[in-house]
Amino acid sequence: MTPPPAIILGLDPGLGTTGWGVIAAEGNRLRHVANGQIKTEPSMPLPRRLANLHAALYDVIRQQQPDGAAVEEVLGNSNAQSTLKLGQARGIVLLAAAQAGLIVGEYHPSIVKKATVGTGGADKKQVQAMVGHLLPGVKLTGPDAADALAVAITHAHHLASARAMQRRASAI
Amino acid sequence: MTPPPAIILGLDPGLGTTGWGVIAAEGNRLRHVANGQIKTEPSMPLPRRLANLHAALYDVIRQQQPDGAAVEEVLGNSNAQSTLKLGQARGIVLLAAAQAGLIVGEYHPSIVKKATVGTGGADKKQVQAMVGHLLPGVKLTGPDAADALAVAITHAHHLASARAMQRRASAI
Repeated sequence: MTPPPAIILGLDPGLGTTGWGVIAAEGNRLRHVANGQIKTEPSMPLPRRLANLHAALYDVIRQQQPDGAAVEEVLGNSNAQSTLKLGQARGIVLLAAAQAGLIVGEYHPSIVKKATVGTGGADKKQVQAMVGHLLPGVKLTGPDAADALAVAITHAHHLASARAMQRRASAI
Repeated sequence: MTPPPAIILGLDPGLGTTGWGVIAAEGNRLRHVANGQIKTEPSMPLPRRLANLHAALYDVIRQQQPDGAAVEEVLGNSNAQSTLKLGQARGIVLLAAAQAGLIVGEYHPSIVKKATVGTGGADKKQVQAMVGHLLPGVKLTGPDAADALAVAITHAHHLASARAMQRRASAI
């Protein structure tokens, strides 16, 4: 018996733009459901931008009803102010997922590249091209939405391998 | 006619411990109302910790009904992972304030030191001692709560000077 498809929400947090992408994973078959980008207005006070991001994510989660979520691990960089901004947006994204009762898978960027392109050293353009290939017919709303779909695909692969391992274990 | 006292919530965000402190400011007179520290469990998944922090802050704001909030500006440091953690917690703190309709004043650490101790180069211990002096009878729940009260005091000073300037302007 095939389990029902898992609806996976991938998220690519950013204060200016947060990408999101939803896929349905049925075994090894993936289907694109929706993707989008949430932008916040740089001229607004930071707390208001974070509240707008939170409200927009809440709407996406309510509409898409995902079973799980996934996000890239962040390495941060030497620019403390940009790491701080990213951290603030990422906190909101993780909060919205947790408040919806979603478990959030976190994947190192090299794992996302390997899961989509096949090599951990792929560049962003290769990842975007492979997202289009793996999800035929997808219309990408932008690069951040593509990154969000890539991490959703990574999560789907991870779930499929975990299930395969379970099956092998129970067959022994 | 004296305006009613302003209830100010100071916040010192951190993923492990977030300090908060509430004061009532009536002109130049300050009164301690409450302070506390919110801790999250390091063994829990990050999204769950952020959700617990958000829920605890929501309770504090509901109970204390502040008129405004204040938080220190963050400079970040060379450790990207610790800046990222702080950013995630800070995002939650700013979100909770914005969701409650509070305007959040942000103050550079040197301004907070100057407003409490009188010199921008004061150390943490001096700030804590002055918080005890400026808010007689205060029982501090910990160093993060003391830092939160210090930024609330800074905000109160800022509001008092702004009002004084307004008065001078309207008397001309």
